[in-house]
Amino acid sequence: MLHADNLRVVLVSTRNPLNIGAAARAMRNFGFSRLRVVNPYEVAFREARSAVGAAAILESAQQYSSVAEAVGDCDLVVGTTSLGHRELQHPLRRLEYGARLIRRQMVSANVAILFGSEKFGLSNDDLSHCHWLMRIGTAAGEHSMNLGQAVAVCLYELTRDAKAAVPKSTPPKRASAAATEQITTMLLEALSRSGYINPLVQSSAENKARRLVRRLNLSSRDAAVVLGMLRQILWKVSGTGE
Amino acid sequence: MLHADNLRVVLVSTRNPLNIGAAARAMRNFGFSRLRVVNPYEVAFREARSAVGAAAILESAQQYSSVAEAVGDCDLVVGTTSLGHRELQHPLRRLEYGARLIRRQMVSANVAILFGSEKFGLSNDDLSHCHWLMRIGTAAGEHSMNLGQAVAVCLYELTRDAKAAVPKSTPPKRASAAATEQITTMLLEALSRSGYINPLVQSSAENKARRLVRRLNLSSRDAAVVLGMLRQILWKVSGTGE
Repeated sequence: MLHADNLRVVLVSTRNPLNIGAAARAMRNFGFSRLRVVNPYEVAFREARSAVGAAAILESAQQYSSVAEAVGDCDLVVGTTSLGHRELQHPLRRLEYGARLIRRQMVSANVAILFGSEKFGLSNDDLSHCHWLMRIGTAAGEHSMNLGQAVAVCLYELTRDAKAAVPKSTPPKRASAAATEQITTMLLEALSRSGYINPLVQSSAENKARRLVRRLNLSSRDAAVVLGMLRQILWKVSGTGE
Repeated sequence: MLHADNLRVVLVSTRNPLNIGAAARAMRNFGFSRLRVVNPYEVAFREARSAVGAAAILESAQQYSSVAEAVGDCDLVVGTTSLGHRELQHPLRRLEYGARLIRRQMVSANVAILFGSEKFGLSNDDLSHCHWLMRIGTAAGEHSMNLGQAVAVCLYELTRDAKAAVPKSTPPKRASAAATEQITTMLLEALSRSGYINPLVQSSAENKARRLVRRLNLSSRDAAVVLGMLRQILWKVSGTGE
């Protein structure tokens, strides 16, 4: 179980109100609520907060004047980076692995994830408050992500359900062998009456049709529809054929 | 290996130019290039295309007037949904699993992922062109994601490296046992000279300090720094103490 309340999303020196709003929206989507902003561009923060439909998350966002204060109650502080030119003094982990470590910490401790400004990312001073850094695995040379999208991707990975990667939904009920055979029989009848099947190769054609019908892998529901269609077609071809 | 060229990102009836731009940016970030738009709000598409720094992706985006045309060369068509009120006639898969199926198809076939309009999502008519649907696992009651963020999250999952979820980066070289013991000795010496250690409980204190230093799990590089610090402190406490 994810302890969503133990996560603080910390936006440092954000410039664009749309990005603050987008971060809040992603938080809501993925079930997080604690947003903190450090030295936002004032106008941006005011605008984001006053936006129509601004989520409760934005309204309850806390504002700080330093990273140190914003992460004061956190036991693990993780910075995000787009792997720029900066010389990294910190362990750098890919999101896939970093999120695992964060989830584990969140069980019993507060964790902050820091996102830097749109233009410059986190400063060296911001980074000095971080235990380690995390990056999203982007294409070669295309590291710089939009801030709102980066927040969404990080929160998605945090809430990602590895078990959901294997199918668990019960597939629709398959058509019974009897229904499948009935479809085959009616199809063959219709084909035969339409002159599609040459009597000389009839048994080979039957086998081909039988296999084809099985490859369709019809659901029980679809089988009923197909039977109805065939019945109607059969009625028509029989009526005109005789 | 991901065959990124086999994926088409199809935006249907998008209204907001920022979202078209955001989708293109996410595509670039994750290494995809084939963007198609179906009946975009004309102004939105023009604006997105003329935006400063509009990626080559936007410039080469193809415009269609129907979903059927836009997916004509695709062998698998997957719709995205936020699980609204719509009654779903399609198999619905979570992104974690859907992305696996898509990756498998992309090896040898073209796949289209459809994203509907910001307000209404994909229409029933759009959905009728889809083989199955995919949704992002959001928090209860918070299904509706921002379009640009939804595109980013889907493309992230497609390129997600499951192997990266386990650490493979070589951890920094650990400090040698000798260096660790040297730190312990100097620390004890400094503590002793500072009057921190009571001679009566000295051996217990030594053991505690030895274990503490080992728990720090110092890297070879940090051990050298700590040794330098201790050497200086020791010099100072020795000078004043004697």
